Amino acid sequence: MPRQITAFSNPLVKQVRGLRDKKNRRREGHFLAEGLRILTEAREEGFLPEILFYAIGQHHPLLDTLISETEAQGGEVIETTPDILHKMSGKDNPQIVLGVYPAFPGGLDSLDRTAANIWIVAQSLRDPGNLGTILRTGDAVGAGGLILIDDCVDPFSVEAVRASMGALFTQRIVQASWEEFVPWLRSGPGQLVGMSLQTDIDYQTPRYESPTFLLVGNEAQGLPEAYEAECDLLVKMPMLGKADSLNAAVATAVMAYEVLNQRRPR
Amino acid sequence: MPRQITAFSNPLVKQVRGLRDKKNRRREGHFLAEGLRILTEAREEGFLPEILFYAIGQHHPLLDTLISETEAQGGEVIETTPDILHKMSGKDNPQIVLGVYPAFPGGLDSLDRTAANIWIVAQSLRDPGNLGTILRTGDAVGAGGLILIDDCVDPFSVEAVRASMGALFTQRIVQASWEEFVPWLRSGPGQLVGMSLQTDIDYQTPRYESPTFLLVGNEAQGLPEAYEAECDLLVKMPMLGKADSLNAAVATAVMAYEVLNQRRPR
Repeated sequence: MPRQITAFSNPLVKQVRGLRDKKNRRREGHFLAEGLRILTEAREEGFLPEILFYAIGQHHPLLDTLISETEAQGGEVIETTPDILHKMSGKDNPQIVLGVYPAFPGGLDSLDRTAANIWIVAQSLRDPGNLGTILRTGDAVGAGGLILIDDCVDPFSVEAVRASMGALFTQRIVQASWEEFVPWLRSGPGQLVGMSLQTDIDYQTPRYESPTFLLVGNEAQGLPEAYEAECDLLVKMPMLGKADSLNAAVATAVMAYEVLNQRRPR
Repeated sequence: MPRQITAFSNPLVKQVRGLRDKKNRRREGHFLAEGLRILTEAREEGFLPEILFYAIGQHHPLLDTLISETEAQGGEVIETTPDILHKMSGKDNPQIVLGVYPAFPGGLDSLDRTAANIWIVAQSLRDPGNLGTILRTGDAVGAGGLILIDDCVDPFSVEAVRASMGALFTQRIVQASWEEFVPWLRSGPGQLVGMSLQTDIDYQTPRYESPTFLLVGNEAQGLPEAYEAECDLLVKMPMLGKADSLNAAVATAVMAYEVLNQRRPR
């Protein structure tokens, strides 16, 4: 049976709310995801929350499934008020469910690079919306996962989880330094393709090799020179306009679809 | 000579800060843009602010140009503190310049559809980041502008302007109802192409006609059925993953690059 929490002062509410801060997520090894769609996506991928909160009086077949499966695996299910859900998630228009999940462990060595034709590698990505959007694109193009290099925004932030629309649970996520990544990359097959303005090679010209590691740089700075030098190939997208730039998540998607289009049957 | 404002209580500061609210932007017919890069982009497109604020003690050749050209066209230039810039823009890490611009007038009849091969049409787009990102993509693919249908987020919101990275000033922006848009569309050449999950036509199969009007729907709902029925063509992108969706700005970009790629010389 779900227990009820209706007091704002409940210490668990405070603790869960604390997971909106990166340092607390790191220390506790847990993160928040919210919304029936995202939690259902997670469930279908085999991820159930350790604690499931839902709004009192809500009924939905997908919610019922989440509740029974969470309880069956020994998780805790808690009925609460919309106000407390809002307090925990920080969202103005709170979802009716919120789950507390253990963060995914795993370094580069846990990846099987042959499991997918495309891997996305992001360097010092700063915007959680971009990170989540890239995860969602990765899901759509059948990428294996997202490798976060250097000082990227936390993929387990509430904003990134939200923007990923559940793709967080379908994509492998690994964090590594560049110094760790390069030797790992070179220890097996794979082509490192950087998106850059410092090249004349059109992104539709090369035939990409599998697995393709698509490298996207920081939103404001792009890739450091030394990182571009390490790439097997630098390519650029045509830009006809004045601004001469694309949003990082958009550029990644246009590239990823090109790689997918070269390989898919039509 | 620039005048100085260093008091938070200055009524102009309050008025400019008020432009972060849509209802004030509507009433006053002005909006805010911030950052040397975006204001320079605007200047190069012929847009100078009516009021230019900059942080005391800042020197930069691009700032000097903005100051002298703003003064030359009769605009007001005001030196102020970083704290006041922060108060006005709401940004944690305030830019060193902020401009107050008159909102662009113009309805559908002001558009010359033959001026570009691609136009982007967004219906009930809710996220200002998506809107700005779509403007930036429009700039990159050489689109003529963005037609906002029904209840879209305000393109002149601080978040949308920021996400557009200056493309707000390179793209025509028009707001219209669907009932206004359809007769206008049908009064001249143009193919209306909707992005949809309700079709088996792959987005790379058709040869798009010029001008192509790319129609993207609301982030959560997609396009209403009646709107899809009006399209000359519905197409979908391959999605290999579980989530079966793409971010709206990403889907628009992948489509827009396909249209561009079909037409550009290589």
